[in-house]
Amino acid sequence: MKVECEQTSSKPPAIAYGVRRLRSILVAASVALGVMGAAAPPASSQTFGSLKTPETPLVLKSRGSFFVNGEISQQDRAQLGELGPDDQITINQMYVEYMVPVDGNKVPVVLLHGATLSGKTYDTTPDGRMGWFEYFVRQGFPVYVPDQVGRARSGFDQKVFNNARNGIIKPSDQPSILRLGDKFGAWQNFRFGPSPGVAFPNVQFPIEAAWELSKQSIPDLNRAVPFPNPTFKALADLSRAINGSVLIGHSQGGRFPTEAALADPGAFKGLVLVEPGICNSPSGPTYTDEQIAKLAVLPILIVFGDNLASPTGVPGPTWQERFNDCASFIARIAAAKGKAEMLYPPKLGILGNTHMIMQDKNNLVIADLIIKWINVNVK
Amino acid sequence: MKVECEQTSSKPPAIAYGVRRLRSILVAASVALGVMGAAAPPASSQTFGSLKTPETPLVLKSRGSFFVNGEISQQDRAQLGELGPDDQITINQMYVEYMVPVDGNKVPVVLLHGATLSGKTYDTTPDGRMGWFEYFVRQGFPVYVPDQVGRARSGFDQKVFNNARNGIIKPSDQPSILRLGDKFGAWQNFRFGPSPGVAFPNVQFPIEAAWELSKQSIPDLNRAVPFPNPTFKALADLSRAINGSVLIGHSQGGRFPTEAALADPGAFKGLVLVEPGICNSPSGPTYTDEQIAKLAVLPILIVFGDNLASPTGVPGPTWQERFNDCASFIARIAAAKGKAEMLYPPKLGILGNTHMIMQDKNNLVIADLIIKWINVNVK
Repeated sequence: MKVECEQTSSKPPAIAYGVRRLRSILVAASVALGVMGAAAPPASSQTFGSLKTPETPLVLKSRGSFFVNGEISQQDRAQLGELGPDDQITINQMYVEYMVPVDGNKVPVVLLHGATLSGKTYDTTPDGRMGWFEYFVRQGFPVYVPDQVGRARSGFDQKVFNNARNGIIKPSDQPSILRLGDKFGAWQNFRFGPSPGVAFPNVQFPIEAAWELSKQSIPDLNRAVPFPNPTFKALADLSRAINGSVLIGHSQGGRFPTEAALADPGAFKGLVLVEPGICNSPSGPTYTDEQIAKLAVLPILIVFGDNLASPTGVPGPTWQERFNDCASFIARIAAAKGKAEMLYPPKLGILGNTHMIMQDKNNLVIADLIIKWINVNVK
Repeated sequence: MKVECEQTSSKPPAIAYGVRRLRSILVAASVALGVMGAAAPPASSQTFGSLKTPETPLVLKSRGSFFVNGEISQQDRAQLGELGPDDQITINQMYVEYMVPVDGNKVPVVLLHGATLSGKTYDTTPDGRMGWFEYFVRQGFPVYVPDQVGRARSGFDQKVFNNARNGIIKPSDQPSILRLGDKFGAWQNFRFGPSPGVAFPNVQFPIEAAWELSKQSIPDLNRAVPFPNPTFKALADLSRAINGSVLIGHSQGGRFPTEAALADPGAFKGLVLVEPGICNSPSGPTYTDEQIAKLAVLPILIVFGDNLASPTGVPGPTWQERFNDCASFIARIAAAKGKAEMLYPPKLGILGNTHMIMQDKNNLVIADLIIKWINVNVK
């Protein structure tokens, strides 16, 4: 911690942040990043110690959860972990939780998470505030929150791992399981600051709760999921079952809206891509003109936060390059007489938003901007 | 399907079930079990095609989700699946979703799931009815639903699997991942009927929706979880944070209430063990007299369903043997001047309940019996 404080305090604090404020950010960040040691912070510092109760009750017509699709897989005793005899299980199903407000007559909204995360992304923020799941419901939208196939409550096909364990396949043929690290994969890559433990002066993410975000990161089995990802069709089938929806996808899931719409163009009423890892392609168009024409019938919104040019700390393009890629995607949609637009809060004077924009301190301000776009563009 | 129908129709249908009713059960069961082939049933047969909307709105003071505890783990690039450089992640955290009713002043209830399942166990039933999560809230209880450490939204530590993939450890040192099969692990073992696809005439489980239950089954990483299971302490810490609770555990999680209470006896106000895989021990006491004395300060309820003597189809004791083990546990608690009792619905004339009693067609009747016990016994 000492080194980081010294390193940073040798630079003048940017903009209006005084030394005391900066130090408090750094101490919080150091605790959040565990740079003081491997000991876990006390329970009082956890989200459940700081849950905010809304001022008004939430009145729901209905709520619950269900699965979409799935396939039956015959597996032998060893592949099933030897809990019982050879049997069948279900794989590639998609878990969905939902809430429908009692006075809700707006278009259903589906909120899809990104890499190594789950539907939890859109619920209570790491510092205990309301997430987009509940906020959109309170604004009159029925809201559906899936876990991607291969993740969290959707599960994954364990067969390949037990096959490797039992010598049926080579260990190297077992897919790698992905996990985003706290310092580079999250803090720096999600643009909480220019380097681990150092925050942007204008950062909107509640960095004192970064350790709570770390807990949301869970094993990502996307390399064990078939191609095309069954989530695409599941999202389209879900949307058809609820008579059309606006599909909002984030990060790794940021291009799932366009993929799902291409799988079933009539299933959706609008698409929102929040900081997608890819829109078009950083190295040239991957969508054909025919695909662009299909997508151009739908209203499309793309959302990016601030501080895009900062180095990510992990392999791959910068967020500025991804922004530029999405801008060229918007131009292609426009050329096909479609309507796609960019929501870039800095252009509106809203600074410091991060990759985890749905958890940022101004997350409801950003939600309102998306809702405004839905109200104007989605019929 | 043909073979199973012929096999079964050669026996006279038991009790009041006529041939037509039996055939319709068998057809539904055959579809549910996929014995007609690997093709998935159509979307219309899925839970989201039959969701029941309650007659009155649900009014919540608050709702959301958070994580309890967790530990920081330093891992290298390969262990993290090569998404970024060496970094730290969190492992052994426990996800919890919750709802607090607006007029709720009753003791908080925690609902813990069993093997290869998640908190989804207690939500919307496979045939689209209200589960215990919402029902207990509607009866005035704040309700908290965790995913066990190592499962679903709680995630698991992927390191050991990537180590095996990369040749750092032997494949055989990689833990096996568990999955319950539909025909033996679920249908027969959960006592929907005496053999796969054949239902008990009095079965309370909505067997036409058995395939939807299959989708709830996801990889169980309990063999990759440290000992003692971090879920025990997380349950106790959760209970302390909400000023005490009644902890209800099911099946594999059925003895977690007593384990969590032994980790922190003052954290709980009551324990409910629903069809625990083990209470005391089928082969003699595993809890010492000192442990029994600690548990005897808490009101304890144990719940079992019907048709207990039916063969399970998987290794291990029958449910009747488990019932007997729990009866001897109750006797030990009584000998220590504690108050433990058995809720055995057949004794009240309620027949046909299964291992998935919280999803059975009379699930709210059973919930009412538990609530009655809480109201009388939990102070």
